[in-house]
Amino acid sequence: VSLALTFADEGCAEALSDERFLAAMARFEGALAQASAKAGVVPATDAAIIAAVCERASFEPKELAQAARNAGTLAIPFVKQLTAQVAAVSVTAARHVHFGATSQDVVDTALMLCLREAAGRLAALSACLGDATALQAKQHARAPMAARTLLQPALPIPFGWKAAVWLSLLTRAHLGLQRAAREIRVLQFGGAGGTLSAFGPQGDAIAGALAAELGLRVPDITWHSARDGIARFGAETAILAGAAGKIARDVVLLMQPEVGEASEPAAAGRGGSSSLPHKRNPAACLLALEAAQRTPGLASTLLAQLTPEHERGIGQWQSQWLTLRELVAAAGSATAAMGEVVAGLQVHTDAMRANLERSKGLVYSEAVSIRLARELGKAAAHALTEKLCQAAVRQNQSLLEAMRDDAEARRIVPEEELPQLFDPQNCFGSARPMIERALASWRDAREAAEEA
Amino acid sequence: VSLALTFADEGCAEALSDERFLAAMARFEGALAQASAKAGVVPATDAAIIAAVCERASFEPKELAQAARNAGTLAIPFVKQLTAQVAAVSVTAARHVHFGATSQDVVDTALMLCLREAAGRLAALSACLGDATALQAKQHARAPMAARTLLQPALPIPFGWKAAVWLSLLTRAHLGLQRAAREIRVLQFGGAGGTLSAFGPQGDAIAGALAAELGLRVPDITWHSARDGIARFGAETAILAGAAGKIARDVVLLMQPEVGEASEPAAAGRGGSSSLPHKRNPAACLLALEAAQRTPGLASTLLAQLTPEHERGIGQWQSQWLTLRELVAAAGSATAAMGEVVAGLQVHTDAMRANLERSKGLVYSEAVSIRLARELGKAAAHALTEKLCQAAVRQNQSLLEAMRDDAEARRIVPEEELPQLFDPQNCFGSARPMIERALASWRDAREAAEEA
Amino acid sequence: VSLALTFADEGCAEALSDERFLAAMARFEGALAQASAKAGVVPATDAAIIAAVCERASFEPKELAQAARNAGTLAIPFVKQLTAQVAAVSVTAARHVHFGATSQDVVDTALMLCLREAAGRLAALSACLGDATALQAKQHARAPMAARTLLQPALPIPFGWKAAVWLSLLTRAHLGLQRAAREIRVLQFGGAGGTLSAFGPQGDAIAGALAAELGLRVPDITWHSARDGIARFGAETAILAGAAGKIARDVVLLMQPEVGEASEPAAAGRGGSSSLPHKRNPAACLLALEAAQRTPGLASTLLAQLTPEHERGIGQWQSQWLTLRELVAAAGSATAAMGEVVAGLQVHTDAMRANLERSKGLVYSEAVSIRLARELGKAAAHALTEKLCQAAVRQNQSLLEAMRDDAEARRIVPEEELPQLFDPQNCFGSARPMIERALASWRDAREAAEEA
Amino acid sequence: VSLALTFADEGCAEALSDERFLAAMARFEGALAQASAKAGVVPATDAAIIAAVCERASFEPKELAQAARNAGTLAIPFVKQLTAQVAAVSVTAARHVHFGATSQDVVDTALMLCLREAAGRLAALSACLGDATALQAKQHARAPMAARTLLQPALPIPFGWKAAVWLSLLTRAHLGLQRAAREIRVLQFGGAGGTLSAFGPQGDAIAGALAAELGLRVPDITWHSARDGIARFGAETAILAGAAGKIARDVVLLMQPEVGEASEPAAAGRGGSSSLPHKRNPAACLLALEAAQRTPGLASTLLAQLTPEHERGIGQWQSQWLTLRELVAAAGSATAAMGEVVAGLQVHTDAMRANLERSKGLVYSEAVSIRLARELGKAAAHALTEKLCQAAVRQNQSLLEAMRDDAEARRIVPEEELPQLFDPQNCFGSARPMIERALASWRDAREAAEEA
Repeated sequence: VSLALTFADEGCAEALSDERFLAAMARFEGALAQASAKAGVVPATDAAIIAAVCERASFEPKELAQAARNAGTLAIPFVKQLTAQVAAVSVTAARHVHFGATSQDVVDTALMLCLREAAGRLAALSACLGDATALQAKQHARAPMAARTLLQPALPIPFGWKAAVWLSLLTRAHLGLQRAAREIRVLQFGGAGGTLSAFGPQGDAIAGALAAELGLRVPDITWHSARDGIARFGAETAILAGAAGKIARDVVLLMQPEVGEASEPAAAGRGGSSSLPHKRNPAACLLALEAAQRTPGLASTLLAQLTPEHERGIGQWQSQWLTLRELVAAAGSATAAMGEVVAGLQVHTDAMRANLERSKGLVYSEAVSIRLARELGKAAAHALTEKLCQAAVRQNQSLLEAMRDDAEARRIVPEEELPQLFDPQNCFGSARPMIERALASWRDAREAAEEA
Repeated sequence: VSLALTFADEGCAEALSDERFLAAMARFEGALAQASAKAGVVPATDAAIIAAVCERASFEPKELAQAARNAGTLAIPFVKQLTAQVAAVSVTAARHVHFGATSQDVVDTALMLCLREAAGRLAALSACLGDATALQAKQHARAPMAARTLLQPALPIPFGWKAAVWLSLLTRAHLGLQRAAREIRVLQFGGAGGTLSAFGPQGDAIAGALAAELGLRVPDITWHSARDGIARFGAETAILAGAAGKIARDVVLLMQPEVGEASEPAAAGRGGSSSLPHKRNPAACLLALEAAQRTPGLASTLLAQLTPEHERGIGQWQSQWLTLRELVAAAGSATAAMGEVVAGLQVHTDAMRANLERSKGLVYSEAVSIRLARELGKAAAHALTEKLCQAAVRQNQSLLEAMRDDAEARRIVPEEELPQLFDPQNCFGSARPMIERALASWRDAREAAEEA
Repeated sequence: VSLALTFADEGCAEALSDERFLAAMARFEGALAQASAKAGVVPATDAAIIAAVCERASFEPKELAQAARNAGTLAIPFVKQLTAQVAAVSVTAARHVHFGATSQDVVDTALMLCLREAAGRLAALSACLGDATALQAKQHARAPMAARTLLQPALPIPFGWKAAVWLSLLTRAHLGLQRAAREIRVLQFGGAGGTLSAFGPQGDAIAGALAAELGLRVPDITWHSARDGIARFGAETAILAGAAGKIARDVVLLMQPEVGEASEPAAAGRGGSSSLPHKRNPAACLLALEAAQRTPGLASTLLAQLTPEHERGIGQWQSQWLTLRELVAAAGSATAAMGEVVAGLQVHTDAMRANLERSKGLVYSEAVSIRLARELGKAAAHALTEKLCQAAVRQNQSLLEAMRDDAEARRIVPEEELPQLFDPQNCFGSARPMIERALASWRDAREAAEEA
Repeated sequence: VSLALTFADEGCAEALSDERFLAAMARFEGALAQASAKAGVVPATDAAIIAAVCERASFEPKELAQAARNAGTLAIPFVKQLTAQVAAVSVTAARHVHFGATSQDVVDTALMLCLREAAGRLAALSACLGDATALQAKQHARAPMAARTLLQPALPIPFGWKAAVWLSLLTRAHLGLQRAAREIRVLQFGGAGGTLSAFGPQGDAIAGALAAELGLRVPDITWHSARDGIARFGAETAILAGAAGKIARDVVLLMQPEVGEASEPAAAGRGGSSSLPHKRNPAACLLALEAAQRTPGLASTLLAQLTPEHERGIGQWQSQWLTLRELVAAAGSATAAMGEVVAGLQVHTDAMRANLERSKGLVYSEAVSIRLARELGKAAAHALTEKLCQAAVRQNQSLLEAMRDDAEARRIVPEEELPQLFDPQNCFGSARPMIERALASWRDAREAAEEA
């Protein structure tokens, strides 16, 4: 166990751990033997022995790592260790281990098997985060707060609408990551040159059986040198981390004591300070922001590895699992942390309301202007509103008071109507249908994912 | 016109030029006036005047740029210039320009309109490149050459199979980019806070009419602070550039005189040297490799802009068009250049064959071993083949000669059968069905794209 | 003029403009002719003609860009246009244009000449920003505000100390960029293969004369394929943008109305909103944050171009000027904007003080504890302080009131001493010497730069 | 031990391992106690106990990682575990553990201590690689081979000159990395707010003693939020990896059997293939190229973390050690691998010569033209040379034969002089002084480093 797990989701890290990766490599070799046996290329008894050994094979990671450094690939020492374990049972069977495959076949396929698990974990985490966000969007669909643009208050919006914007990001991230994950649930199996030359005309049948055994698809053609699927998966992973990071960004800003509109849920051992006992840090949001800062660089590494040389490149595919480990662990960390934060978010609606009113009604000028326009026409109404706003600022009074002080305004808008103009509920425009559409899309995304 | 166009596809650069961008902004404002008129929010005559002015409005880019630098957004001086032009026709109409919209609405929507054009151009370029690649895959489906792994010769493969691997990349890049482009054919329209507050309950209807007018979709909810669509589009653009770069990588390696298996088509003024008259440089491939080197960094910038503050961020969306300009121009440059290269590629099948034979038959050892195994069983056959290979290397003879010199080999394989073992056509394994699947997927991608 | 200038410093953009770049290329060719004449390789009269034409040569950028796209380099069509202009004066002289040089020599050297100008501009801008920051550090060396860690208030610090941290960043960025700029003030001159083969033993002398003429150094060896100097310059440019971005980050957070501790200087046409008349946006800080978001990706492109093939690579050096243009323009934009912001920063010391007091004295608990320890020892003092803090929170009173209410505390600390404990001036620890050291280092950096 | 070490230098990985990092954290805490004792802030006996425990403290990484995930920093659970270990010896002493420091103080300082070790290891590796490269440059200072530009042969150069270009990159990388490493050999010590508030006027003295104890410098001012030193170090690490990658790029291209001009040294277990027994892969170069592909993205992450919020950011510094671990391990892997490759490089001078002659003398056209010009003047000589080249190509003869067949050429250049024109030794231009300068700079760099 490494300290690196500090900034990783344990489930995601586990899916791409040394142990799982080596087990997936062994699974490939076992399934290959059995698929070859079906095609009559390997005797069934030998295949059965290989498959049995692969199921319980164990490896010496330290020794493997050192030998892999010499070989330039993990596969060569891995196959050597595996072959020795099979030979301990049957020297004859050992001759068929890895037959017809190449190093990249086993490494890439093992990576795809591990990423399938990791993507499943990420999907579960993003489903949780999305569900929690959807709940916030629903519950606070009418709770007014200030929209903030360029960090300056603008107009009243419902907090639920803000959450619905988060949800729209999550909906697309959830679907996008699963789509990308589906696209790389493919076998890598091409042999030394990529054409399955060792099997004559039987290669396709063996590939089919191997893929079926592993629960993967057969690709149109070998992708040893076509790394776009991994680049796409990397980009979607970074986007999921970014979506979690966006929510975290907003929460840490709302959690500033001077703003005080929301707080991370308190949890034992979370958010303390090593030097100041009175502090409460946004420690879960920190994880999401931390992850979102590292994922763009990691994703760009995968985008930079699209141009390997000829049929098998030098230095591209060999390290992609390292980069994917970091990416997936970071995205998992971000998504898990924000799942907890949003589910337990303390929403301080009173503070939202109070901050909104700090502007002394100026945030309602749009509403005032529109009401005045019914009588005066738009242009004159706009001019009058501006005059009222300036008067309010000059005399340090509220816009409502300025209206009461102005003869024309008083004439047009009766006293009993005034409060409606300064009611945030009347400023929400299309917030409600937007929230509803965002919720519906999330439901669709959840259902689509379940069917897939 | 800037020297930057040296490394840009003109069509793509054009789609995101200053002129087109400003025209798209004007188009948004014209359509907004008309959509608002339909909802009764703006008088129809005023809307007609605004729309008419927008159609022929012209702007002073230098002045705009300077004012935009002060304002932090292009939209403010743009709306000011536009309003002045409308006011020159009708002071009344001028009062309704940009009504209810915010700066980011017009900038983002204009960007989406420009990206739609750019994506169309990219799709046309990738269709050309894919078609040319498909033709190479078909025409050279049986032309033998050496597979090269880690830049070392491995086994015979057909050149058409190599082209089919390129095609598989292009198929996914073609579909991926269009999917990403489709997802961002959306309106941005939220007003000051994002909720269309200026329009009361009419916001949705106006958004619908505005989107219809511009040929865009209405999004579930405002995406001022949800920049994932742009990040996804950026990643797909980088992947397309990477696919073109992968083909270029292979071509420049094949074009080394020491290899000499393929050449860029010769073209007037292309590939000369400023100092050496005898040289012929891979100048078109250069463009693709150049582009593929810049796109990962540019795409990572977009992935790093997913966490803007609250309802409108500081510094993220404001510059995305700059980054997208570079990305799209680079991807266009790469795809266009390789379209020409692959369409006119000089494939030197003789040199391919000659390089294949340099190994003196060692590349056929797999075939020899399999033939011997029919009689000897796999293990003994493998041992004999190894012995034969070593003998051939030691005596600097070919593997075929070594077989003739070996009594056991001669006994098992009759002289008349020998040539078949050393025929690359018999080593292609599953190359043919792989090529066919890749071609079929390309055809599907082309049809899918046309329907969309 | 392009809209791209919106997010560029004009001076920096100018230094790398098409015009300046072409002029620098011409300057190289003129100086080359004269250096060659000194070595007797080119007749002096011909060299004089070439040099004269180069001084006033003008080029057709559009035509150049198109031809350069075919040639894979700007140099080939450039030399062609230049040669034609020389030939119009003297056919004989025209034969010596560009003699012995290669495309990359003229492009790289021109880039170095342009970067020298750009670096000078950046140095002037960072000197301004640093001077303004130093002034703030001095002026507010004792103005208390809350330190904020993880966006939560921690302890009192002087605002001048915060500015001194900014200054320390700027000091290193200022020095680092100039160091990197100095390191690339080198000639590129190697000819076709890099060894100056066309000049026999005279190459070194010509290189020396050429470098002297251009005010550049002669490098140890040709650097056609050694691009580290550019990568280093790119990283330092990104660091300068990051330093400006850091200041901007703090200012926009302080400028939130809920915090209200500082404001960008107001300027005509700056910071308005297209939809909300009451808003004041941090439009200058926006420029710095925008730049700081793009520079890491751009710098990574240069770091990814360190491994060109053999003596001249395919696709690396050819585009570096494009990336450097963006980088330099962005860093210039950020530094210029923050120079204005810091110079005119409105520092609201009352608000700083008021925000500090919101904690009701809890931010002074360290001081209380240390005072109590004089009598009680550290452990008992710490325990008592904790008890007092808890009492204050529970009874919603200030820590000072809680001390007055507590018999033991009252016994130890006489009433007249209490105010000193709650005086932020007494909490500043080593702030003063830190500020002084930061100011001294800045002065040293300024002087060092002037000497250089 | 993790499989990730496959792509890491063990020494570098070790320097940043969990164990060393935790030990460095403990070392900080021990030194802090003793420095505080010197200033009279902590009783000497307590400090001695703390220091003694710190020297032999051991930690539970798994438990720490989990708690750190909750706390948002490793420091909080670390200090808790350490305090418990001190308390087991002395409850009184335990009260002084970590006194006056903040989480970031211990984490950042520990990172600096670990990076010091890592930088030392990197310097040793780059010294080895540079020394080996210098030897190649010297030994092959006159061994002719083809310069290759855009992967096409250009002119004869000495292989030693090519190595000297590599060396020039290494010289700057060696110096640059050590300079960057020197700049971050600084203490981080600011306490909760950064001003050492807990120590009143004694902070500076304690910082001085603490830094002296740890062998670090005292910075001008706390750098909790000034992360430029780390960004600079990251860029230099990426540049070192790039320099190693550049050499690897050239070697793998030379090692193509069709080129065959150089080979990696053969080593047991290195470079085999899992499927093809006859293959020899450039497995060590692979490591360098692999590393050079990942480092730009990792370095860009550090460049993107320059803008933390206020006095301590959310998500930037917390993960930098993760990114630095990867960067340093990758750069170490690349440099170590190429150290072995260059030291044992098999240089096939015969093949270099043979490839050079493939052009049938066209690569000597420059020499021919210059010789003819002595008689004819430059213009006529150039014309005649072009005619001769064309004739040679047309008749598939060598340029030398074409000269013999041409009456004018024969007249000007006597038969006995001809071989000199086609002698690569006469084409090396300024190669020799360039090599010598590069060697001298390397020697200077080595000496400078030793003095430092």
